[in-house]
Amino acid sequence: MTPPHPFDNAIHLDTIDGNVRRGRTHPEWANQVGPFGGITAAVMLRAIETQPDRIGEPLALTVNFTAPIADGDFDISLQAARTNRTNQHWIAELSQDGAVTTTATAVFGVRRGTWASTEAHPPTAPPPEQLIPGGPSPSDFIAWGRRYDMRFVEGAFPGEHAQPNRSSMSTLWMRDSAQRPVDYPALAALCDTFYPRVFLRRSGLIPSGTLSLTTYFHADQQQLDALGGDYVLGTAYANRFSGGYFDQSAQLWTRDRALLATSHQIVYFKG
Amino acid sequence: MTPPHPFDNAIHLDTIDGNVRRGRTHPEWANQVGPFGGITAAVMLRAIETQPDRIGEPLALTVNFTAPIADGDFDISLQAARTNRTNQHWIAELSQDGAVTTTATAVFGVRRGTWASTEAHPPTAPPPEQLIPGGPSPSDFIAWGRRYDMRFVEGAFPGEHAQPNRSSMSTLWMRDSAQRPVDYPALAALCDTFYPRVFLRRSGLIPSGTLSLTTYFHADQQQLDALGGDYVLGTAYANRFSGGYFDQSAQLWTRDRALLATSHQIVYFKG
Repeated sequence: MTPPHPFDNAIHLDTIDGNVRRGRTHPEWANQVGPFGGITAAVMLRAIETQPDRIGEPLALTVNFTAPIADGDFDISLQAARTNRTNQHWIAELSQDGAVTTTATAVFGVRRGTWASTEAHPPTAPPPEQLIPGGPSPSDFIAWGRRYDMRFVEGAFPGEHAQPNRSSMSTLWMRDSAQRPVDYPALAALCDTFYPRVFLRRSGLIPSGTLSLTTYFHADQQQLDALGGDYVLGTAYANRFSGGYFDQSAQLWTRDRALLATSHQIVYFKG
Repeated sequence: MTPPHPFDNAIHLDTIDGNVRRGRTHPEWANQVGPFGGITAAVMLRAIETQPDRIGEPLALTVNFTAPIADGDFDISLQAARTNRTNQHWIAELSQDGAVTTTATAVFGVRRGTWASTEAHPPTAPPPEQLIPGGPSPSDFIAWGRRYDMRFVEGAFPGEHAQPNRSSMSTLWMRDSAQRPVDYPALAALCDTFYPRVFLRRSGLIPSGTLSLTTYFHADQQQLDALGGDYVLGTAYANRFSGGYFDQSAQLWTRDRALLATSHQIVYFKG
């Protein structure tokens, strides 16, 4: 029997009652403190997907990282704040021993055939097969980095003797190391794989952490099915750093120029 | 006695108890259905500001528009999901007769002196004094449009014989018509003044509505004080339209190139 993929382990949830799911942290997804934020976003989204009365597909997810998650079990409580004909609004809270560590809101909705246009443009990049993984990478420092095959086009993780960069932009191809097919939880996690932009600007591991992460899901199920476990092209940049905080925005693209998701976050940093 | 400014009327709240504030809709801020989303975002943020145990200034606000708000009173319930040393996470719900119409999460935090850099660039625009307000505008259709003096640089509200645009970008100077000084609630409202980008691409009033709006506040109080009631330069664009939904992102700048806020939303549309 093939052992389950680490991502499936991480988003596995037990039903405690109609509105509560229980999950647990996994060492494969550890960050410097607590789990990788992307896996927390994924498990919050997955919890809503397990609700039998859920309507449609994910459109938007906001996750607020309120406190570190300790190793061990956690409970996710779910509340459908509003159910409309074609969309549904959710509130979720992840807690450990009664203390909230993560809050989230999500919008799910039914996708319909409409006029469509992708106005944004993917970044220019050679195919992933022409890029060699290597050089300094998050996987040298954190367990979850090894869950992804990352091939940087620009803005690679700063090495020991890196100089400060004038640009905070990173562009990279990435895929799940075991090529697990991308579903909505996996897409939510991929949107948070971009290391804090302040590392690039200040050329080092500046203490920092995401406070709030918002992702808009543009891909429909058919596009995810076509993607499978292939590489996605990600790009991320920051707009402004000040007062100990900065924002960063990201886009995820397929090889054939489909925009899968846009994602934004606000991050605190020291120094 | 000078009558209160319409914005101050709209964000006025009565304290019902420690965690509940009562407000009401005002015809000056009416949209086609219910109030202008920006004024709802503003009043949610204001409600948190009235909490005596609130820490710091707004960093992030996500507002989910779950159902239309009817004319009349509404209650906003507040919960501090987590209080840390230098930041605080809030959950808020706006309800009428016990039914939730709006949910929100917010992050407040203390700003500190740190390394700072604005990496984004403001759009090119002549000064607002060189632009003449006029032409078709939201104020021809909706009451709240008259609360703002809007001077478009590009991407003006499409008129009767407008052709579809290839770009969804609008850039405009805008200020409160009565030059009320900009505070955080006013900044939250300004971020939602950009009409739905699908109007520009499809050259018409396509039925549409914001589902979820996230704003990151970059300005500190000193920058808001310096701005006062002056014009801000706003720019907004969409990334992808598909399946009946699209995202749009916006930036607000001062004359002296300070990035006050970045804001993102997902919008449903028909057709």
